[in-house]
Amino acid sequence: MLHDELEAHKVDALIVTHLPNVRYLCGFTGSAGVLLAAPRPVFFTDGRYAEQAAAQVEGVRVSIAKGGALAAAAAGCIKMHLRRVAIEADYLTVTQLTALRQALGKGVKLVPLSGIVEELRAIKDAEEIELIRNAVELSSRLFRPLLRTLRPGVAESDAAARLEFLARKAGAESMSFETIIASGIRSALPHGVASPALLPSEGFVVLDYGIVLGGYCSDMTRTVHLGSAPAKARDLYAAVLESQLAGISAVHPGGTTGEVDRAARQVLKRAKLDRFFTHSTGHGVGLEIHETPRLAAKNQAVLMPGMVVTIEPGAYLPGEYGVRIEDMLLVTETGYEVLTPVGKGLVELN
Amino acid sequence: MLHDELEAHKVDALIVTHLPNVRYLCGFTGSAGVLLAAPRPVFFTDGRYAEQAAAQVEGVRVSIAKGGALAAAAAGCIKMHLRRVAIEADYLTVTQLTALRQALGKGVKLVPLSGIVEELRAIKDAEEIELIRNAVELSSRLFRPLLRTLRPGVAESDAAARLEFLARKAGAESMSFETIIASGIRSALPHGVASPALLPSEGFVVLDYGIVLGGYCSDMTRTVHLGSAPAKARDLYAAVLESQLAGISAVHPGGTTGEVDRAARQVLKRAKLDRFFTHSTGHGVGLEIHETPRLAAKNQAVLMPGMVVTIEPGAYLPGEYGVRIEDMLLVTETGYEVLTPVGKGLVELN
Repeated sequence: MLHDELEAHKVDALIVTHLPNVRYLCGFTGSAGVLLAAPRPVFFTDGRYAEQAAAQVEGVRVSIAKGGALAAAAAGCIKMHLRRVAIEADYLTVTQLTALRQALGKGVKLVPLSGIVEELRAIKDAEEIELIRNAVELSSRLFRPLLRTLRPGVAESDAAARLEFLARKAGAESMSFETIIASGIRSALPHGVASPALLPSEGFVVLDYGIVLGGYCSDMTRTVHLGSAPAKARDLYAAVLESQLAGISAVHPGGTTGEVDRAARQVLKRAKLDRFFTHSTGHGVGLEIHETPRLAAKNQAVLMPGMVVTIEPGAYLPGEYGVRIEDMLLVTETGYEVLTPVGKGLVELN
Repeated sequence: MLHDELEAHKVDALIVTHLPNVRYLCGFTGSAGVLLAAPRPVFFTDGRYAEQAAAQVEGVRVSIAKGGALAAAAAGCIKMHLRRVAIEADYLTVTQLTALRQALGKGVKLVPLSGIVEELRAIKDAEEIELIRNAVELSSRLFRPLLRTLRPGVAESDAAARLEFLARKAGAESMSFETIIASGIRSALPHGVASPALLPSEGFVVLDYGIVLGGYCSDMTRTVHLGSAPAKARDLYAAVLESQLAGISAVHPGGTTGEVDRAARQVLKRAKLDRFFTHSTGHGVGLEIHETPRLAAKNQAVLMPGMVVTIEPGAYLPGEYGVRIEDMLLVTETGYEVLTPVGKGLVELN
């Protein structure tokens, strides 16, 4: 399929420098290497990774470069008499571009392209879906133990430390992003990473976290309430949950991501809360925590079977509190499957 | 001082996009923003960070951009009638460069520069040195508790999970890099991140970790031995320690980083171990875990008071085991100060 893309852009090869794309295309998980995706592809890395590359890289020749992988890839282009070579414009730096141009000379034309491998990655195959299921299940199993750490007076960062400890003990390779535990007034921050703030005796706590397992990310958010939630807080929670369910229901193959965003947003609009929903509705998840597609207003990207996305509307009342609820979904041939197996009724911790 | 650099390069301004450089120059710690470092500097970010930027950014006007911070910075260049504007070539992507060029038109010349802010950052001021001391002290306090988790049959990743839990509980914002706990045969990997492998009943364990506190990183390595070390292992340890001490002794203001590397390497050469020392001797540490200067063979960078560097030689016998010992040092007016307050005699855990 990459072959078709390169043909459509009339290029002989793509120099792949973005490491998640390298991993996707040839299996290498290390931190330095360049894939020359050509009719006869070659993966270039340095001596530190010789053993690892030999073990991981499949279907692609491995070459150990002395003077840097990118320079070696340039030499490879010349050796293969390539004429038009694409680069990943969203990741290649100006310094790297300059070095490539000098190494290649005038005989090779560099063509900046965006999103080629990312589009392929958006559609997950069966093996990837299995890995994502495993990541989602592991992180979901941590939710109850996390709730048990939430007591008034506990620091958000201590609860996060406990969660991350349990995640690693359960086999997670790492967290997939900085854990968000935002309590009380901080729950009104859409991106309130766990701070030294102490959990209040009463109020919302937004819990947004994910792990990496087998290289694939999970991402989930639940909002719980310390003590009994007053009526206004319950109403806010109910509105966000209704919005999230509407977003989920709007997911179907052939639909656009913009439709899903609109479905979620309209529920909050009816409740006069849409101006407090200040971010997009969701994003793809895979080897990276934020991937293609983006589920945002007016976005025309089409949902396709095999896509894995989040649906995560929220509403944030500045200076008061906020609520966000997030699941991961798989787009199927007929609709969707919610991957996150954790209930969404309002949990009040007493 | 940045002003002098810009003058020397005959540019009117620098568009700062690398976030650690943005933080260094204006104090902003968020994940999206661009600093236009001009005679009248402006920091551009989006609505999500309005509150945070107002609280953090000092001495620089803050502008909340609607269509993206980089586009707003370009508009700022035009409004200020700037003619020659530098960009950070090591970080700006080809896509960003193209967008800037289109926004600026032919009236503004873009000048690619490298390492301008990084050179300034290499020399730490008193406040930064204090922050680095705090980070080093916190991570050093975790060393004894880490040793207590090391028992045969414990997974490397579980020991890392415990360390990271203790780090967060002690106030660390995060780890400064993926924790390396490499035991037995894995100690021969220069970069053996903690794996599910179980600690053996006998053998070396390389412990290489660091934390972030107040935005600044720490970095230290110790190698301990489970059970009593046989003579050959003791000899290897002694050689690496002698090499590390020689590297430390070679640190002085006005000396080159290459001299330090050579001093450490020569000790291992005398012991016929230099071919097993497969990486450079050290690196600067600050807002990022790897900074200017690099301490590598033939490197001509000059050490200056206020630089903070690691000295971390190692020797790795493939298929057998390896040893690495690493401290952080401050270059002073008269020589150096070892910042890492943890002993380096061989620890045998029985």
